[in-house]
Amino acid sequence: MNGKSIKRKAVILLSGGMDSSVVLAIATSMGFDCHVLTFDYGQRHNVELEAAKMQSVNQGAASYRIFKIDIGMFGGSALTDHIDVPKNSVSIDDEMKIPITYVPARNLIFLSVAAGFAETINARDIFIGVSSVDYSGYPDCRPEFIQSFEQSVNLGTRAADEKLKFKIHAPLLTLTKEETVLKGIELGVDFGNTRTCYDPDKNGNPCGECDSCILRAKGFKGAGIDDPVVLKAKSFKS
Amino acid sequence: MNGKSIKRKAVILLSGGMDSSVVLAIATSMGFDCHVLTFDYGQRHNVELEAAKMQSVNQGAASYRIFKIDIGMFGGSALTDHIDVPKNSVSIDDEMKIPITYVPARNLIFLSVAAGFAETINARDIFIGVSSVDYSGYPDCRPEFIQSFEQSVNLGTRAADEKLKFKIHAPLLTLTKEETVLKGIELGVDFGNTRTCYDPDKNGNPCGECDSCILRAKGFKGAGIDDPVVLKAKSFKS
Repeated sequence: MNGKSIKRKAVILLSGGMDSSVVLAIATSMGFDCHVLTFDYGQRHNVELEAAKMQSVNQGAASYRIFKIDIGMFGGSALTDHIDVPKNSVSIDDEMKIPITYVPARNLIFLSVAAGFAETINARDIFIGVSSVDYSGYPDCRPEFIQSFEQSVNLGTRAADEKLKFKIHAPLLTLTKEETVLKGIELGVDFGNTRTCYDPDKNGNPCGECDSCILRAKGFKGAGIDDPVVLKAKSFKS
Repeated sequence: MNGKSIKRKAVILLSGGMDSSVVLAIATSMGFDCHVLTFDYGQRHNVELEAAKMQSVNQGAASYRIFKIDIGMFGGSALTDHIDVPKNSVSIDDEMKIPITYVPARNLIFLSVAAGFAETINARDIFIGVSSVDYSGYPDCRPEFIQSFEQSVNLGTRAADEKLKFKIHAPLLTLTKEETVLKGIELGVDFGNTRTCYDPDKNGNPCGECDSCILRAKGFKGAGIDDPVVLKAKSFKS
């Protein structure tokens, strides 16, 4: 008898950043068979894809898929277009302002594709690493969106006619970056194999100045832990 | 002065079938600048893509794009997998049963991508040709899903922080196939350049036996009009 086959399946959206890597560890610790979905969406920070694969392998995911989707073809974001990524910006402190790094409807699209994938493998649990505490102000990271999407997917899929409904898990939703780092440490996440920076150099080293780097640094500093990625980048430079 | 530039933009999901072709005509008649989005999603009935392009050109759409998305990679549908399309099935009469031709989360994914595209061109109106009257029982064609999705997209995009909200238009939602045919005739839609069949032959001629062909035939018969596509197919065979 294969003990694995009786575990419930979940689909995990994994970017290769620190948040989604912690989410994968959380889903695994909850006893789910984790089927990882990573998006290749024409993002400039392609180094994420490699980090996502390593996290999946290291954390013992049940399957790992890269889904290619060219949302960059529409333009409209500093992450997929040739627009400069803002450095040392104030967007994090200005809660109501949606920054230029927002990718139009990204989480809506990612969650929708995850729902389609989940249906085909008979999973009804989807995990996403959004947080509405230390975040960049993206509307698709807020709790009211996640709740509304859960309703939409339950009305627009086979779940509409079944008892078992979709659950969108966003376990970091109310966590600060510091709490996320500590949770990851507790669950044994190797942060050295995560990538967060919006604008890494050609070796994949973080810029240290974009919103994402600033939030990450805040988390590690608060947790009183050195970020292994930053340490490694420093050792290359010295 | 360019009169066109003051018109409101809309994104139209166009498959190349009769329903979405009528929807494009409706959106145009409402005065929208129509930006057409067609999905190449690994469907077996690729002839739809050609029909969609011809409809866009003939109806004077402002732009036309094919968005490639490999939702077929997950499997799970007779439309993208190597599963036989049911012929002369009863699924149309059995309202509660979701047929095997259902593509997991298709309209959820299509509408999400449309929302992303709409954001980049500053459109807030999206048109989709779903109907919950003469339909195959797909959950993502029902009014409660469309309403819920409209809420989700308004919470998960820039619209969340703006006064101008998204509107998902489904003008065929309560129309029978007969009424859709008559609406199309009224608006001058060339039904000879539409494709509906789930399982066309290598020349693109309809099988006449799948759910989609049966519903289309019902519409034309009810409207008292000969379907030009069927007439053409018959003339090839004779």
